[in-house]
Amino acid sequence: MAAVSIKKISITRVNNLEFTDTTDALAIEEPLEIRLEYGPETERKVQNISVTMRTPGNDAELATGFLFTEGIIKSKADIANTGYCFIACAENKENVVQVSLVPGVMPNLHNTERNFYTTSSCGVCGKGSINAIRTVSTFTQQKTGQIAVNAELLYNLPIVLQQHQAVFADTGALHASALFNLKGELQLVKEDVGRHNALDKLIGASLNNNQLPLDNSILLLSGRASFELIQKAAMAGIQIVAAVGAPSSLAVELAEEFNITLTGFLRNNRFNIYTAAHRILLPSYEVTN
Amino acid sequence: MAAVSIKKISITRVNNLEFTDTTDALAIEEPLEIRLEYGPETERKVQNISVTMRTPGNDAELATGFLFTEGIIKSKADIANTGYCFIACAENKENVVQVSLVPGVMPNLHNTERNFYTTSSCGVCGKGSINAIRTVSTFTQQKTGQIAVNAELLYNLPIVLQQHQAVFADTGALHASALFNLKGELQLVKEDVGRHNALDKLIGASLNNNQLPLDNSILLLSGRASFELIQKAAMAGIQIVAAVGAPSSLAVELAEEFNITLTGFLRNNRFNIYTAAHRILLPSYEVTN
Repeated sequence: MAAVSIKKISITRVNNLEFTDTTDALAIEEPLEIRLEYGPETERKVQNISVTMRTPGNDAELATGFLFTEGIIKSKADIANTGYCFIACAENKENVVQVSLVPGVMPNLHNTERNFYTTSSCGVCGKGSINAIRTVSTFTQQKTGQIAVNAELLYNLPIVLQQHQAVFADTGALHASALFNLKGELQLVKEDVGRHNALDKLIGASLNNNQLPLDNSILLLSGRASFELIQKAAMAGIQIVAAVGAPSSLAVELAEEFNITLTGFLRNNRFNIYTAAHRILLPSYEVTN
Repeated sequence: MAAVSIKKISITRVNNLEFTDTTDALAIEEPLEIRLEYGPETERKVQNISVTMRTPGNDAELATGFLFTEGIIKSKADIANTGYCFIACAENKENVVQVSLVPGVMPNLHNTERNFYTTSSCGVCGKGSINAIRTVSTFTQQKTGQIAVNAELLYNLPIVLQQHQAVFADTGALHASALFNLKGELQLVKEDVGRHNALDKLIGASLNNNQLPLDNSILLLSGRASFELIQKAAMAGIQIVAAVGAPSSLAVELAEEFNITLTGFLRNNRFNIYTAAHRILLPSYEVTN
């Protein structure tokens, strides 16, 4: 089933002192409940893991990406299948996704009693969460090749993203996460009303395609870079994150800790480098991809 | 203690092909744990209600605003006191706020097992959440006077907000919620890395000042209008919400249901009216404040 991301409605447009009845496109926001089925074959258990407000589309990727970036599952091999559940009160809307693990595979649920909004935070300081990522990410420990890109290459990324951000153009309401290769070529874009969902969709799709870790890619964020987004990028092994907006203090601290190159305010041939500046090269250097 | 909202760090600024070492101001993002103490005098109980990533400042307002917009407390009279807890792992950071209820006052905790990120959603359709708001809000049922504003009055609101958004100007990273009276005069601004936190701070401050319901005010949102923000506005009895950004589909549905006037894309003497257009007047009408 193709998901619908846009809803057309009647509105009144006010321009200076003129009122015009017209139509407008809204980005759809709907809740998605993520359920996990797991346990030995004879004793399966279903647990509600999270509810997120998201834009329909790529729900399976969103669910698996969320489970992966939260450290609940470790790889694609943990998953037997993923599908929608239809229950009475939902009016048959596709708002519940169930991820079933391979019998015998046990999810890491030590974190699920926490409030997922804060992702990996201990709730009191940033330390607990950083330790949690260090423990659960299989990629942060094993960085292999050193990668680097020319500063100029970054300038073009938001322009390419804009050309591909179909829904945003209509609604002005969606965040995007985009993956580029080291030549600056667009590999994947995901959009959502929630910036964390857009990134989970992107990482979930990459997981399904056996493309993790994303250590040879540049992640472009259409807006601001929060702690949560850097945490997800770290889980996916991403080494370069470029944000069109501003980073938060905790995003910079986490990027520093994980040796992730974090740049912000990428627009009009300008950006700021907050951490790990060695991966951004001056033009006098030559990059070998 | 005055909260610090900004952190200065060293960065590399890249402008075309020039690299400059300089400093930049980041909006601080830190977790805040909200705890609730309640029960009869002889049997007090402390419960962790939520953890949110927020910008320090107005933490007591954030906590009480959150408890109120979630329907956990009903009024200022429920609260005995609010203060920081300092615990070992937090390095004495002010990251835990405890709200103590008056002995005997019982909080409405039927919703706390839900994931608070989705606020009042049943997780499957929007219906459950809309019903929940109808049940718990004391203001949505008892709308008294009809209010209305001239279209022109709205144009100026983002300009006034910008002049007062101190931290945003430095960091480009904060969302704001602002309250205006029906003459377009700014009453209150709160900022945060999380848009929902900015609104909870504003509603919490209004609760503390005995100003609820806010049914004679205009709420201005510096960014997009999500479901969650309209839900909080409904809980506070707000009748006019003007967003600088786009609304989501569920935000419009909820505004429609609660007869809240929702406008979006408010910039350059233009905006769209999504719901309850009768509160926005053409200049030929006269408004009596």
